[in-house]
Formats: sequence, C-alpha cells, structure tokens
Amino acid sequence: MKLARIARNSPDGIIPRLVVVQPEQQRVIDLAIAERLRLERHGATHDAALRLATTLFPSSMTAALSLGDAFLTAARHALEYANAEAIMPLSRIHLLPPLDPPLIRDFTAFEQHMQNISARLGQPVIQQFYTIPLYYKGNPLTLIGHEQAVPWPNYTDHMDYELELGFVIGNSGRDLTPQESLSHLFGVTIFNDFSARDIQGEEMRSGFGPAKGKDFATALGPWITTRDELDLAHLDMVARINGEERSCGSSATMTWKVEELIAYASRGETIWPGELLGSGTVGFGSGAEHGKKLQPGDVVELEVQGIGLLRNRIGQPEPRGWEPEPRKVSTKTE
Amino acid sequence: MKLARIARNSPDGIIPRLVVVQPEQQRVIDLAIAERLRLERHGATHDAALRLATTLFPSSMTAALSLGDAFLTAARHALEYANAEAIMPLSRIHLLPPLDPPLIRDFTAFEQHMQNISARLGQPVIQQFYTIPLYYKGNPLTLIGHEQAVPWPNYTDHMDYELELGFVIGNSGRDLTPQESLSHLFGVTIFNDFSARDIQGEEMRSGFGPAKGKDFATALGPWITTRDELDLAHLDMVARINGEERSCGSSATMTWKVEELIAYASRGETIWPGELLGSGTVGFGSGAEHGKKLQPGDVVELEVQGIGLLRNRIGQPEPRGWEPEPRKVSTKTE
Repeated sequence: MKLARIARNSPDGIIPRLVVVQPEQQRVIDLAIAERLRLERHGATHDAALRLATTLFPSSMTAALSLGDAFLTAARHALEYANAEAIMPLSRIHLLPPLDPPLIRDFTAFEQHMQNISARLGQPVIQQFYTIPLYYKGNPLTLIGHEQAVPWPNYTDHMDYELELGFVIGNSGRDLTPQESLSHLFGVTIFNDFSARDIQGEEMRSGFGPAKGKDFATALGPWITTRDELDLAHLDMVARINGEERSCGSSATMTWKVEELIAYASRGETIWPGELLGSGTVGFGSGAEHGKKLQPGDVVELEVQGIGLLRNRIGQPEPRGWEPEPRKVSTKTE
Repeated sequence: MKLARIARNSPDGIIPRLVVVQPEQQRVIDLAIAERLRLERHGATHDAALRLATTLFPSSMTAALSLGDAFLTAARHALEYANAEAIMPLSRIHLLPPLDPPLIRDFTAFEQHMQNISARLGQPVIQQFYTIPLYYKGNPLTLIGHEQAVPWPNYTDHMDYELELGFVIGNSGRDLTPQESLSHLFGVTIFNDFSARDIQGEEMRSGFGPAKGKDFATALGPWITTRDELDLAHLDMVARINGEERSCGSSATMTWKVEELIAYASRGETIWPGELLGSGTVGFGSGAEHGKKLQPGDVVELEVQGIGLLRNRIGQPEPRGWEPEPRKVSTKTE
C-alpha cells in the first residue's frame, strides 16, 4: 500500500488528509471519507460515522501509525467502500510531506559516500564510521513535500541535495536486535536532505554536528510505500538535476543495513511509531561528490524503485538579516 | 507564574494535567478543573464546561502554549475560581517533564565550560565557538521530570550531568533580531543534559555530533517559570551530587545571550511554540570539568534561582544487549 498526506480545502482553511495512492490508476482515495461510507453502510448515522472516521484517519500520519496494525487493517476495509466521493485524480491533488515524525535521525550508512566526501577533503574516512552507525538528528518542523519549493537561507552560498531513503517506524520497541527490527519498519519514503555545505562544514568541524547546515528544509515523499511491497536490499536510486541524471545508486550498497539502523536507534531508549530514520546519502548521491553546487531555480528529482519520484525546485536566496557578532577569546581560564 | 505537568489517575489510567504551581503555598492548581468551575459559575452545563476546559488546558504544554497569549490570560482567569476540588498539596503530586517540545536545540553558550573541557583534552577551544552559537539537537522522546530515575544505557561506562537552563519558546517567528527575540521567550526551566561521555566523545570526533551520548535521557523541571518573574541576566545556578555542592555558576556568564540563541535558531526557519533551547553547560557545570564520573544510585540536584530544584537519581546499568559489529574498510574507491 502507498500512503500519503494531501492538502484539502475546508470551511476552516486547508487541512491535511490521509490518502491511499494508487499510481497505476492515477488516483488517490481519502481514507476518512471511505471509512465514513463504510460505517454508514453498516448503520451508523452520518455524524457518528464522521466522528469515528476522522478519529481513525486523522490529519497526522504519526497518530494513525500509533494505532498499530489497526491502521492498515482499517485502511484495507475502508478502501472497499470508496466511491466517487472518496476518489480524486492524482493530477488534481497537492501532496504534503507524508509523515509528521516526532523525531528524525539521519544516519550515514553508505561507505562509498563517505569515501567520496573524504577524498574531496583529502582525508581518510573517519574511523567511527566503521564501528558504529553514526547519525545526527534532523528537524521535523521544516519538512516539505513533493513539488514544494526549497527555501534558500540567507547564510549559505552552497546549496546541495542528498539522495537518501527514509525508513518509517511503525511499532515501538527498545533494545531490539536486527532480527527483531524489521517488524518495526512500517515503510519507506524518499528523503532529500538539503544541505547548506559551507555552514555544515563549520558545524561538523566543531564536533557538534549538522545544525543550520540542514535544519532549514528536508523533503519527504511523494508517499510512503509499505514494507511488504519492497525488496529492501535492492532499491535502485536515481537523482536528476534539471532533468539530467546526476546520481545513481542502490540500497544494496548499504554498509549498515536498515535492520541494524533500527536496532541501533533502539539501544537504551524506546523508538516510537512515526519516527523517521534516514539512510544517509547513497554513494555519488550528492553534488558535493561531483564538485557541483545547486543554483536558484534548479529542479531536483529523486526517484526510488517501488516508491516514486520526489521533485523540488530550489528557491531564491533570502535577503540578508541579522548575523551573530563574533566573540573575542577570553583570557580567563580555570 | 509557574507552570507544570503532573500525572493524575483516571478511569483510563494515568493522564498528564497542566497545573499552576504556588511553591510559597506548597500547592498546585489543576487548570482544567479551575476553568470548568469558572465556566459553570457563568452558566455552562457541567459537560460543556468540561469539554471546553480540557480543550483549553490539554495534556500537552506545547498545545497550550500554541494558543498564544490566550493561554496565560485564561490561566489567570481560571485561578480565581479554584476551590478545594482544583487544589492539591505539592507534597502529594507526581511531576512530569513540564514540556513536550516538538524540537530541542541544545546550544553551548558558556565559554568557561568550553575552556574547561578543552583544557582537559589538551586542546584550544574550537574556533567555531566564537563565530556562531553552536548547537546539536536533542531527543524530545526521552524527557524525564523531577524525581524520575535516569536510565543507564548498556553502552556507557561514563555517566555525567550538565547544569543548564532550558528556554521555552512561546510565539512563532522567523529571522528575528535579538531585540525582537525576547518577546518570543515564554519562560525558563532547568535542563539536565545527562551524557554518556565515552560514546559522546566518539560521536563528536566523527563530526556528526552527540547522538547516543545524549539521546537516552534529558531531565526537565521541576516547572517552567514565566519570563516576567526572572532576571534572565542574573540567574544563580548550582549542582549538588548526593547533597554536596559540585557546580556553581550564573546566567551572567553566558557568552551568547538568550536573545541571540533565539534569533539564531530562527535564521532561515520558523521557530514554534513549545520549542526548547538549552543554554549549554555553565562553566564548571559538569563532572567532566572536575574529572569526576557519576555512579549508579547517585542523586543529582540542579537548582536555579527563581525556578526551583530538579532532582534525579541515577539508575543501575542495564544488561548488555546487541552491539553493532565493526565493518572492514573497503578497498573500493571512486
């Protein structure tokens, strides 16, 4: 099943709705409407059916995922009752980020990417890459969906993309083994970790890790494909800039496998439904590995086998604003 | 005003409730009950008053803060109607983390802390500290409140505390100047950034920043004191281990001021109500600066002027579990 969130108009303004996407039929199905129709067919009044249907299929994908198996089971039942009221053509909808994650961890799982970046810096790959699955935490408040514009913050002159997989957690767990982990994976989406390389470099050299270098925007979408539809070990991945292929890779080259990333995330803490784990950039999956920068107006397309295509246009640089004033080194010491 | 979240029993199990804390009277007031009493006094039916009161004062502090000025205005009105049904002795309640933030950024704003840590490592302070307010992002899913136990993950032998201030955002904004920023600060709480120093060191040397070194637990509390009650530039800060004073500092020594941290967070992105900004550790505010480690069973108390005291006991090390298997360096290169 493919699940998305779309923006719909209502008397209260634009509201997010959960939908099932059927790309082969070029259509989506509004789950709350389909469920209301199902309940009505089974004797519920309109008001009661509406109340229960919108609680079962709320605006938040994380809230829906938190229902556990009940979510997909209910979605399958609802789909059987979809009629014209619930169905919309794919060409007419406005996609939102498919997920509203409570936490994003973006790993770095591909050795080839680390080798390419390190070679450009004239350094060996950091040794920690080989001992633990490294990650930094992303910003869940600046997610953008398919066809949404990428803001260009005023503090960067070097914009880049990153071709990654986004793994969506479906069930909570703690101290999982890799063997146990896969059953906690709900599905996979495409993850474009837009990066302001100049400030990111400073942040990583400081040891504190990516902050303003990544926090301004992350693209997710176009939708989430459930795990059962995917061969996780063999997902072809492609990136195109203005229609020209720039990157090409596969999940087969992951040095750290998805089940190890999930197990690692769960060490010493509980992972929760809706959490998002990024795979990190596939080898050659960024401009930095090719010595190329994005320009305002560039169109970035990421395509992953079994999922779909995520397209975003780069915006214009924002006007200059306040900048922090450098501090002097104090002579005071312990 | 001082605002907290407490755990209360209900027919549906334990639920979080928003309360106003009055430490001088050793009591708390349940805001939803006080508001229901107010509405009933003005002619509302019990059911309607209950429905509106629990929507205005929900379980989530972030949801309440998202109401903007209406939240504190309503809280002040509700307090006037509090009777015995709404009032509980402070000695009888169970505090939760006062905030459920959608995002945590933990800055490093105190030069003295950076000098102390760098001196122990035999290095100069990283130069980036002096040019930008550095931060890493924390884990909002593992927050603990006053008197809650601190889990000891199985991957660390070196547990430490960090004495910090937690700044709570009340209003959304973007590209703010420091002058504009202070009106976006709702209040301040105490922030204990528990740290697994061994793995944290590896993570920071990798450039990706703190991950498993911090993600297992962060203590917040005991409550949030609103900005109007505090002299932000002069908050005395103390840490005690098993009753013995170990750290002592002041917000006066912040190299990067709170208004600069907020302005910086808002560069190129919108900050939202409920976001939490950590100040970073005050000078001498961690065991690492004294060459001391925490032990299982240790009791850590952080006290900040105008806020209160946050106490947590360190738990026992958890049993060993799955560990990632180191990878071999591939000879494959570009």
